[in-house]
Amino acid sequence: MKKTFQIKTDKRIQTTDITAMVQDLIDPGYEGICVVYTPHTTTAIGINEGADPDVASDIERTLANLFPKDGDYRHFEGNSDSHLKSILTGPSETIIIENGKLVLGQWQSIYFCEFDGPRTRNVYVRLLAD
Amino acid sequence: MKKTFQIKTDKRIQTTDITAMVQDLIDPGYEGICVVYTPHTTTAIGINEGADPDVASDIERTLANLFPKDGDYRHFEGNSDSHLKSILTGPSETIIIENGKLVLGQWQSIYFCEFDGPRTRNVYVRLLAD
Amino acid sequence: MKKTFQIKTDKRIQTTDITAMVQDLIDPGYEGICVVYTPHTTTAIGINEGADPDVASDIERTLANLFPKDGDYRHFEGNSDSHLKSILTGPSETIIIENGKLVLGQWQSIYFCEFDGPRTRNVYVRLLAD
Repeated sequence: MKKTFQIKTDKRIQTTDITAMVQDLIDPGYEGICVVYTPHTTTAIGINEGADPDVASDIERTLANLFPKDGDYRHFEGNSDSHLKSILTGPSETIIIENGKLVLGQWQSIYFCEFDGPRTRNVYVRLLAD
Repeated sequence: MKKTFQIKTDKRIQTTDITAMVQDLIDPGYEGICVVYTPHTTTAIGINEGADPDVASDIERTLANLFPKDGDYRHFEGNSDSHLKSILTGPSETIIIENGKLVLGQWQSIYFCEFDGPRTRNVYVRLLAD
Repeated sequence: MKKTFQIKTDKRIQTTDITAMVQDLIDPGYEGICVVYTPHTTTAIGINEGADPDVASDIERTLANLFPKDGDYRHFEGNSDSHLKSILTGPSETIIIENGKLVLGQWQSIYFCEFDGPRTRNVYVRLLAD
């Protein structure tokens, strides 16, 4: 069964480190993979550096310049920039689990990427074993 | 075993909602995940809003501006823009299945993204249970 | 258990075809999926054309123009362009396996994408069966 947790975002564009929240859902000794999935169309799940917050803010700012909110879009809700960032970053990540631990690199964190907040958002996690 | 279905695209760049075609391959009561995969190098599988078709057309048009067909490319086939969009959107999506149903958000559809049509294309679907 | 192999890159930006290295880790007759994962925050795993090396070099050059090394970034290490390309291309690919063979399209290769080399890098591969 999938497990669910919620994220409350405070800003329109906001990267939240959810590594600990995902890790907490994994039983000791578990072997397999996990799929971390966002069911929203203006958010994404990414993996990148968690140590220096400037990395996430550089990503947020550069993508905002590339896909400006007030670009030449037709979608009536005014958030086509958010949909673009969502589809390119992607709605999920698949991560290996060994002995109950997410196998991430030393500098890797799992990001919840909010591109059209502030809102309350869901994250789904599905573990799969051999 | 993987299951396969085909998509016939009519235009060079075309987003097709394949959610129902994927759902039809899943037996009632199935629990696990599915991998939706395109074996072509100028297409992609994405997930985003299916309700308003302007979302997909905004994505198509913005990516076409970002990666113009006649950019500064060396690849002799004249479709480097398609390869770029393919690798950035990605060749697959992994989706949770609960009780025989794809667990998608309310506004999420699975997109087959054609970036160098019109052609007849294959989509592979692999279900995996615990 | 995950399997690991190493890649030594020679340049700052370099695409390496790792298809054969991944295939070598799969036992004859295996049925399932495999997750190919990079634990670094300035690399990515992609899938695209392996036949004409101009495709990979067009991708490298276009992304370098889109995210210049000396852009307006705050991260002190001077590699925010690498982090951007890493999160957009993504840290993993999930590939179907049938009868011990990766199910790739005729023109598809698995790319290890180095965006901040030269370095020695790890690739993790996790097979998962029904």
